[in-house]
Order: sequence, then C-alpha cells, then structure tokens
Amino acid sequence: MSISTRQASIKELAEIVGASIHGDSEVTISGIATLELAKNSDLSFFTNRKYHKYLLSTEASIVILHPDDVKHCPTNAILTDDPYLAYAKIATWLTKPENLKSQIAVSAIIAESATIGDNTSIEAHVVIGNNSLIGNNVHLSAGCVIGDNVKVGNDTVIYPNVSIYSNVAIGSNTTIHSGAVLGSDGFGIANEKGQWFKVPQLGTVIIGDNVEVGANTTIDRGAIEDTVIENGVKLDNLIQIAHNVRIGENTAIAGCVGIAGSTTIGKHCAIGGGSGILGHLTIADHVHITATSLVTKSIKESGVYSSGTPLQENAQWHKNFVRFKQLDKMARRLSKLEKKDD
Amino acid sequence: MSISTRQASIKELAEIVGASIHGDSEVTISGIATLELAKNSDLSFFTNRKYHKYLLSTEASIVILHPDDVKHCPTNAILTDDPYLAYAKIATWLTKPENLKSQIAVSAIIAESATIGDNTSIEAHVVIGNNSLIGNNVHLSAGCVIGDNVKVGNDTVIYPNVSIYSNVAIGSNTTIHSGAVLGSDGFGIANEKGQWFKVPQLGTVIIGDNVEVGANTTIDRGAIEDTVIENGVKLDNLIQIAHNVRIGENTAIAGCVGIAGSTTIGKHCAIGGGSGILGHLTIADHVHITATSLVTKSIKESGVYSSGTPLQENAQWHKNFVRFKQLDKMARRLSKLEKKDD
Amino acid sequence: MSISTRQASIKELAEIVGASIHGDSEVTISGIATLELAKNSDLSFFTNRKYHKYLLSTEASIVILHPDDVKHCPTNAILTDDPYLAYAKIATWLTKPENLKSQIAVSAIIAESATIGDNTSIEAHVVIGNNSLIGNNVHLSAGCVIGDNVKVGNDTVIYPNVSIYSNVAIGSNTTIHSGAVLGSDGFGIANEKGQWFKVPQLGTVIIGDNVEVGANTTIDRGAIEDTVIENGVKLDNLIQIAHNVRIGENTAIAGCVGIAGSTTIGKHCAIGGGSGILGHLTIADHVHITATSLVTKSIKESGVYSSGTPLQENAQWHKNFVRFKQLDKMARRLSKLEKKDD
Repeated sequence: MSISTRQASIKELAEIVGASIHGDSEVTISGIATLELAKNSDLSFFTNRKYHKYLLSTEASIVILHPDDVKHCPTNAILTDDPYLAYAKIATWLTKPENLKSQIAVSAIIAESATIGDNTSIEAHVVIGNNSLIGNNVHLSAGCVIGDNVKVGNDTVIYPNVSIYSNVAIGSNTTIHSGAVLGSDGFGIANEKGQWFKVPQLGTVIIGDNVEVGANTTIDRGAIEDTVIENGVKLDNLIQIAHNVRIGENTAIAGCVGIAGSTTIGKHCAIGGGSGILGHLTIADHVHITATSLVTKSIKESGVYSSGTPLQENAQWHKNFVRFKQLDKMARRLSKLEKKDD
Repeated sequence: MSISTRQASIKELAEIVGASIHGDSEVTISGIATLELAKNSDLSFFTNRKYHKYLLSTEASIVILHPDDVKHCPTNAILTDDPYLAYAKIATWLTKPENLKSQIAVSAIIAESATIGDNTSIEAHVVIGNNSLIGNNVHLSAGCVIGDNVKVGNDTVIYPNVSIYSNVAIGSNTTIHSGAVLGSDGFGIANEKGQWFKVPQLGTVIIGDNVEVGANTTIDRGAIEDTVIENGVKLDNLIQIAHNVRIGENTAIAGCVGIAGSTTIGKHCAIGGGSGILGHLTIADHVHITATSLVTKSIKESGVYSSGTPLQENAQWHKNFVRFKQLDKMARRLSKLEKKDD
Repeated sequence: MSISTRQASIKELAEIVGASIHGDSEVTISGIATLELAKNSDLSFFTNRKYHKYLLSTEASIVILHPDDVKHCPTNAILTDDPYLAYAKIATWLTKPENLKSQIAVSAIIAESATIGDNTSIEAHVVIGNNSLIGNNVHLSAGCVIGDNVKVGNDTVIYPNVSIYSNVAIGSNTTIHSGAVLGSDGFGIANEKGQWFKVPQLGTVIIGDNVEVGANTTIDRGAIEDTVIENGVKLDNLIQIAHNVRIGENTAIAGCVGIAGSTTIGKHCAIGGGSGILGHLTIADHVHITATSLVTKSIKESGVYSSGTPLQENAQWHKNFVRFKQLDKMARRLSKLEKKDD
C-alpha cells in the first residue's frame, strides 16, 4: 500500500535535508511506501538491516539511505548519514496539509472572557472556560473541554475529547492526543482514624513547547507547586504522571509507564514501556530505562538500567518462580559450603 | 439479586442451544441469577467447581449444567457439554433489547458528505467528519467524535465519548467501549542532535468484524502501513496497541497490556493482564502468555509462557530481591565448588 | 510560588483542627506555599524530614508542624500531632470555593424522565438518559454522558468527559475525574470452536459515598451480580477494575493497577502503583501491596507484601536475568553438593 502525497522531484526532496542524489536527477514521486510494497512513483527509505532483502528488490522510484548502502540500491537514492531523520523531514514536507480556513463551530461554547488567537480553529462542541487564552493557529478538535484560566500556545493541536482542567498552561507547537487528561487532582490523601481526608491539589500542570502527549495519558496537577513537562518531551499513550513530577527536556517515555509523585526525571532520558518509577526520586540526565523496569531508587549516573525476569515456557518458569523464594537461603547455604571447603 | 428478563420456557431455552431437558418440561423463568442468590423463576448455571455447594441448595427454577452434574441438581436442568457457552447464548437471547426506532439527535453534527445507513442511531453531540460511511443498524452513542473518511460497518455499537481519527476502518458487528481512541499517532520520533523530530504517521487502523475494544483502550495508526486488528479479536480495557501491530483472528487480550510497535501476534492467542510485549516480535498462533509477563523475544511455538517472581511477605521478599543481584556470581561460585568436588 | 487563599488568622486556622499556637497569635496569612518557596503571608507545613533544611530558613508566616519540631521553626506555628492531616483540613477550608449559583447549560440534553436535584449544576453538552436521578448540589461537568436509570448522590462532583453506562449507582460526596468510564462491559467471553461468544454483562457498578475515582480509570459492570466500590475508597488514575470485583471501605489504590474479575479486596488496604491482582482471589483487610507487585494467590493475613526484582545497570542485570532460568537447577546442584559434603 502506498500513501499518496503531493508530487515532488528528487532535487526538491534532497534539498530539504541538504542531501546528495544518486541516479536520475529528474525523477519524481507522488507517494510513500515501505521498501517491500513500494511501486513506481513511490518514495521509500532504508534504515533497518532486517529489511535489507527488500532494498535489493524494491520497486520504489527513490530510496533514502546511507551512502554506504547505495551499492545495494537498485533505484535512485537520496544519500544521507541519518536516513530515518531525513525521511521524517521529507515525509513531513510531502504530507503537510494545506492551510485550511480557520473556523469556529457554532456549537462550541466559549466564555465571553476567553481570548481566541488569529487563524485558530475550534471544532464542534468544544467548551472553553473563563479567562482562558488560546493562541494563534491553534486547532481544538471536537469535544475538548478546556477549563478556566487555561493557556494554550500558538500552533498547538489538541485532538478530540481531551479534558484540560482549570489553570493548566500548554506551550507552543505542542500536540495532545484524544482522551488525554491534564490537570486532574493528584492522589493526595491524609489518614484520619482509618478514613481518607482529601488533600487539596492547589498547583497546576505546566507543559512546554514541542511536547507530545499520547492518547489517554493522564497528568495530575501539583499539590502546591506544579507538575512540569519541559520542552521537547514526548509522551506515548496511557502514561500516568503524578503530582509534582518534573520531566526534563527532550525525554521520551513509551506507553503504559507510571511515574509516582514528586519524582524528577532528567533531560534526554528514554523510559521503556510499562515501567514504574516510584515517588520522590531523582533520575539523572541521559538515563535509559528498559521496558517494564521498576525504579525504586534515585539514579545518579547516566546509563542503561533494567529489572525483570525472562519469559519461559510456563512449567519451567514455575520451577524457577518458586525457587526465587529460597534465593537468600541458597546464598547462605552456598557460603556455608564454601567455608567448609576452605 | 436477580436480573429480570423476558419470560421463557425451558423448552424454548434448551432449543436455542440444542440441549436436552431434565425435570419439568413446562417450567418457565423470568430472571437470571447466580446459584447462590437465585429464587423461584430464575435461571442459573453451574460451571465452576468452587460453587458446588451453591448448586446443592439453589432455589433456581432452571440450572444449565453438564450432564455429569445433574445428579447434584435439586431442580430442573438444561443439559449441555459446555454450560458456560450455553448460558452465554441463552442469556443473550433472553436479554436482547427490543428493536428501538432509530434516531438521529438534533445536536449531532454530521458532515454533508457523510453517508448514514438505514436504521442507524446517532445520539446527542456526536460529530461525523467528511466522506465517512456509517453502515446500517449502527449505534453511535453520545459524545463520539468520528473523523473524515472513516468507515463503520453494519451492526456495530460505539459507546459514549469514543474518539476515532480520520481514515480508520471498523468492521461489522464490532463493539467499541467508552473512551477508546482509535487512530492516534504512533510514537515515531527521530533524534536530531538531542531533540526529537516527529515522524509523520501516515497509515491508519483497520479493525475487523466481531471485534470488541475495551474502555479507554488506545490503538495507534500505522507509520506507513496500517495497524490491523483481525476478525474476532477481543480487547479488554486500558490496552495500548502501538503502530503497525497486527493481532490475529480470535486472539483475546486482557486489561492493561502494552504491545510495542510492529509486533505481530498470531491467531487464537490469549495474553494475560498487565503483560508487555516488545516491538518487532512475532508471536505464533495459540500462544498463551500469563498475566504480567514481559515478552522480549519472538515466540515460535504454541504453548504457555510466563515471567515474573512470586509475591512474598515484604521482609522475606526483600532478602531475595537483594540476592537477585548476586545470581550470576552465585552460579559461578557453585560451578567452582562443583569443580573442586570432582 | 504561592497559592492565593482567603485571608485568615492563625487563631481561625488552629481552631479548625483544635491545635495550639506558637508565636504571634495575631498573625494572618493569605497564601499557601512550600517551606522552600514560602514568603511573608504564606502558610506552610512540615511533615517530611527530607525538607528539614527548608524549615530552618523558611520565610512562611505560619508553619503547621509537630510540637517536637517547634524548636527548629523560625516563625509562628500551629502545633498538632498530625501536621499533614491538619494541613489537609486547613487548606480545604482556606480554598473552599464560594457557593456559585447553580446552572443548567442550554446545550445539555436531559431526558424528560430524569430527575435533577436542587442546586445542581449541569455544564455544556452533558447528556442524561431516561429515569436517571441526579441528587442535590451535584456538579456534572461538560461533556459527561450519563445513561439511563443512573443514580448520582448528593454533593458528588463529576469532571469533564466522564462516561457512565446505564444503571450505574454513585453515592454522595464522591468525585469522578475526567475520562473515567463506569459500567463498561466486563470481559466475559465463551469459546465456541475457536471463536469468542460474548457473555452478556447484566450486572452494574455500585459506587459508595466519599469515593474518588481517578482520571481515565475504568470500572466494568458485573456479569450477573454487581461490581462494588465501597464507601471511602480512593482510586488513582488509569486503574482497571474488572467485573464482579468488590473493594472494601477506605482502601486506597495507586495508579496503573489492574484487578481481574471476581476478586474481593478488604477494607483499609493500600495497593501500590502498577500492581496486578489476578481474578477470583480474596485479599484480607489491612493488606499493603508494594508497587508493581503481582498477586497470584489470596492473602489471608494483614501485612506488607511484595514481588519483583531490583533495578541494575543493564549489563549486570542481563547476567542475572539469564541465570534466573537456571535457578531451579542451581538449587538442585546445591543440594547435591550438600549431600556429598555430609
């Protein structure tokens, strides 16, 4: 299958990323496809060794690839040291939507005291509260509910059915996917003779520029200070970020991660899917946590960290699973044998 | 507590599943309840040995059970080799809602270019985008937002506040629960000197017939090719399915599972709750993963697979938890002792 | 940063919690801040030893703290044995919103047969089904969809875009955060020759008084009996509660927990974030499960329970990860050596 795009020549495309050209410098494309499925007039790219055999036989008209691989390429090529990044930029350019006329739906309910910027679109059934400031070129999709005193920066896109509580601030050029909830109360409860008394959650959520928040991800407001998502952070779907968490610039977090209250994560970190990070911890910059790890202590040094046990056939696993309960005793028995042996 | 149903005779009910009758062939019921709580005029069923004592003393008028168990049944019975399946079919028939007159709410915003089938209901505040095709006998509940060029097959039910992005295709007789998000952008990012550049997500999501998607489950659109959920797949709540994943026919996935990008899962698999499956893997047909397992490699053979460690009282667990860090050293020390011992 | 509040004197504040006063008994505050960031006219509190240095230099006008700590406090103080609880109560009083005039939005779609209590507010685009009963002083936020025959008790607050299926009953003084789904179908499926047949989910969800349900949390309706959340239960975000689960009074559950079908959890339990609890289990009262644990068996005694393995630097972890597969064999080899040694 091929994705239709505007028509473009290899010269135009190479120019976007400052790359050089191999082959016919007049060739044009009008679609994007994988190496395997590309046909004549399609653009493709080669980055993953696993798909080398598809490079050899691709029918694409142009392939973006590393200069070292051009010898295996049966067609025209755009040569670049980082083909994936080049593909991202070229595909963005090729598929950029035309500037649509901005519209404000009749069914949107916008407080009189709210301010809406220029060229901003507000779709059906959107609700915007008192004194909220929506920037220029913003797109608010159908069914979004935006509280009072909310700020949304220029060029930000919010997909359908997002809920944004009062006082939340969102930067520019940020994307929020459907079902995300920003500014819900943090989980603050104090015990009084066995019953829970709610601790008011008085802070808010501050989201920077160039952030992406995935579908159904939840970010709680701070208890007193704010929960902060710095510029360039990328959050996948179904992530829970608790009150007072701070996530450093350009950190990327995969789906289903939970981060407990008051934890600070550094810049340029990568957190694998399904991981859990306990509260009141500090994670250094450039830390990589692999998928479904549990972080129970602060991490002071950049590096790659993991926890967890391997998948096995169930019966074999169960034997080891049970033995885990004896691990400390096994260690002591081993030491005892070693002592005797001396 | 008993659930009221239409009145029906044991003959009518047995006929639905082609089962035989034990006891009074004229008895009727007008409700459904568990063995423990059933009263006169209730239907119940017996499938779980754990509830055997409740069978012995049940006041139900009819019990669906296996012929081997009829000797313990104090009342009339419907005899079948698979009482749970028979119960499912009989209860479905007993509680089938009457055909309501289809309605299109005045507050729904439907693009002029959209096509709506016969006998389809569209509730309040639904939004339907350009060129979308909604089939016959479809039910779109309040607050759903459906993008452009979406297809929804016949007899499909979509519960409130579901978000469906543009170009997503949904089959027939499929059910989507509230808060589900279909077609959000996959988590595709390319690094440029420490900053993330978004990779356009140009594919879509294809959902087959007879699929169920649980509440707040998210399914990302493909990067170039599509994310595909084949016919008969059952997805529980709060599941994350990343871009380019394919899930084979009749696979069932329990809640809180995360599946990373480009992984293919076979047919007739069962994935336990809370499990994580890494990206670019292939899982064979008929694979059963037990709850909260982490799958880091492809699985080529059908079978039951597990990972994880046992729950223990905290102090005891902590001793073993700490020893896990020494496991490799312990293995080496053990080998050394064995060598000396030879 | 400081949160503005109504102005209040130390006497008024101490009286709320029956505490004694240290220092100037005429001092007033008009804001709340952390010890570190508080300025003159701010109230703060001291509960976490970690922040002791900030107590020593705080510029707050009043600090809530334990009498034992007053010697380190450079300013006026409210003395109480439980400063966190006292802070919760005082902050609640200080930030209590003024009674707003109740309003019913013109765009709300309310069935004629529904009953709406006194002083209840219904925001834009809310939908309320047939025969539903909404109590007094209830706040239903924009975009909420409430089915037929739903009950919502007095003083309950429901945030935007919540979906409540038909027949669900919610108590008084309960809070439901955005995106939560109450009453979606349980994951009941019966296998028929490899295909799944849906088991009708005929029960509902019963939620007690003083409950909090976090953002995007999902609670499935019961299969025949009901799913029950008892009084005083606190649920964080992105929790999945399956059909027929019962959660006992005043239990608190952190984010990203999954609880499988028909499990009963006792009163006053605390379940750590990311944990998974299998189905058909019984957990005693006063059980504490630490974060990301997997519970595979019933727990009969109160206590603290854990599972999981420690985070390590990746290369070191991988050695131990691989050895886990040999654990049972290691145990047998150890026993063999011990026998020889005798």
